[in-house]
Amino acid sequence: MNTAQFTAETISGGIRERDFIVGDVTGVLWSASHDPASPTSASPEGTRQGTAQGTPQPTPLILLGHGGGNHRKSPAMSGRAERLVAAGFSAVSIDAPGHGGRPLTAHDEREIAEMHRLMSTGEPVGPVVVRYNAHLADRAVPEWQATLDALLELPEFGPDTPVGYFGLNMGTAIGVPLTAAEPRIRAAVFGLFWPDIVAAIARRITIPIEFALQWDDEHIPRDAGLALFDAFASEEKTLHANAGRHKELPRFEADSAVRFFARHLLGGTSVTAAPSPARAVTATAATA
Amino acid sequence: MNTAQFTAETISGGIRERDFIVGDVTGVLWSASHDPASPTSASPEGTRQGTAQGTPQPTPLILLGHGGGNHRKSPAMSGRAERLVAAGFSAVSIDAPGHGGRPLTAHDEREIAEMHRLMSTGEPVGPVVVRYNAHLADRAVPEWQATLDALLELPEFGPDTPVGYFGLNMGTAIGVPLTAAEPRIRAAVFGLFWPDIVAAIARRITIPIEFALQWDDEHIPRDAGLALFDAFASEEKTLHANAGRHKELPRFEADSAVRFFARHLLGGTSVTAAPSPARAVTATAATA
Repeated sequence: MNTAQFTAETISGGIRERDFIVGDVTGVLWSASHDPASPTSASPEGTRQGTAQGTPQPTPLILLGHGGGNHRKSPAMSGRAERLVAAGFSAVSIDAPGHGGRPLTAHDEREIAEMHRLMSTGEPVGPVVVRYNAHLADRAVPEWQATLDALLELPEFGPDTPVGYFGLNMGTAIGVPLTAAEPRIRAAVFGLFWPDIVAAIARRITIPIEFALQWDDEHIPRDAGLALFDAFASEEKTLHANAGRHKELPRFEADSAVRFFARHLLGGTSVTAAPSPARAVTATAATA
Repeated sequence: MNTAQFTAETISGGIRERDFIVGDVTGVLWSASHDPASPTSASPEGTRQGTAQGTPQPTPLILLGHGGGNHRKSPAMSGRAERLVAAGFSAVSIDAPGHGGRPLTAHDEREIAEMHRLMSTGEPVGPVVVRYNAHLADRAVPEWQATLDALLELPEFGPDTPVGYFGLNMGTAIGVPLTAAEPRIRAAVFGLFWPDIVAAIARRITIPIEFALQWDDEHIPRDAGLALFDAFASEEKTLHANAGRHKELPRFEADSAVRFFARHLLGGTSVTAAPSPARAVTATAATA
């Protein structure tokens, strides 16, 4: 089995950022720093205060899947990591195949050229994104699994570490097959993708899901986005559809994702002010 | 103009609850108490700490519309009020016509009997709920407006008080025409209702909206719920669709509604840990 080789480390603003390599995959791990002046280091690194018994529990780990054309340290990834660490999580992102300086195959180059051609002529790019991202997912899923194997060997984690996955766009194209294959993932945030190919896999997923969709997405037809949300077999799933175009996802959805992971992976604690039992009866419309 | 006549007052858990009457409408006003031991009374009643200039700002007021067959102090109303007061708001609920001990007309009695008959035979009750709630809205909208007139005369509020509306089920059937008619309402949470009648009115509404829908609602067809969300002309609107039946709305949606009002009505402050600018560019699926 591969191990994680750490290659660089910085500490800033209460967050420890470590670059690593697993095999030939480049990744980054964010966690709370030891800095006692930091508001995020109230509990020892790698543990947090447990439930009433006071038992330390492993810090949950969120896998962050970046979007197409992006990389492991894009602003969306580091921004989500910052929010997650502040809320008591660690977070990891790896470069997808052909991304973040990883080598491009001839197949990658042909597909990327085709997408650029379609965008320059204004033709729909979705069909090529769908097929190319499915190809990337075939390569990325075992890379994510090897990364998870390696990280959970670290002293700060362990086999009982709660794991979540958070990825939109290409991060969903890769994350859905990863989640279907990976029983260690207990909760996931997906969105902004087409149902072709991915929906059939989503039907095997039963963990809690939060799903982001843009109501006026110029690339993904509304019914297609709704069909992907519908496909998940999860008993608990929430769709967040916001007015706006494909790239206009409101930033408050990142905060919502953190709260979603807190509900499901931080047992007995919550980042919200009020307790949130899973279900409650609301007033009914059907009795006058 | 009617004034609010206060008829009873209790203080508990940092919350001051005052019953009042405006005309012949029974209502209840929840606000932070003076109790210095309470975490919700850090700022003087009726004001809260303002922005960097230190100017006190009026406490925003949220209008809570209850569901059909319910009343102003139902658990859903008092639970939302508790969350809102803790976050820096005041909240008010009034009994809808024929609800909470208010007299029933012969028309009310006929419609209620018809709904009970349909439910006992398992026939769709939606068409009667839609037409009866539209009738109630005709009576309730001027009552809400008179209540708002009266409350904003109180020393703790004022003409610049930011106002929001929060009502699901029948609370949406009444709230949509109220919001369309009432320019003082600046943000609203709606949901769990049919588009018939109400959607045409929603097309005139442009304020920020959060909208709750149950993905497996046994009364409201999915397409009907989506059509009502779609109807709002608001540039900023968010749909929260949760797996589950009509009465299974997750309680965390009440916390979400409080955060929504905080974003829009508590200028410069936020109940979330991280800053939340309205929009941010996400990674794109369309560029590989």
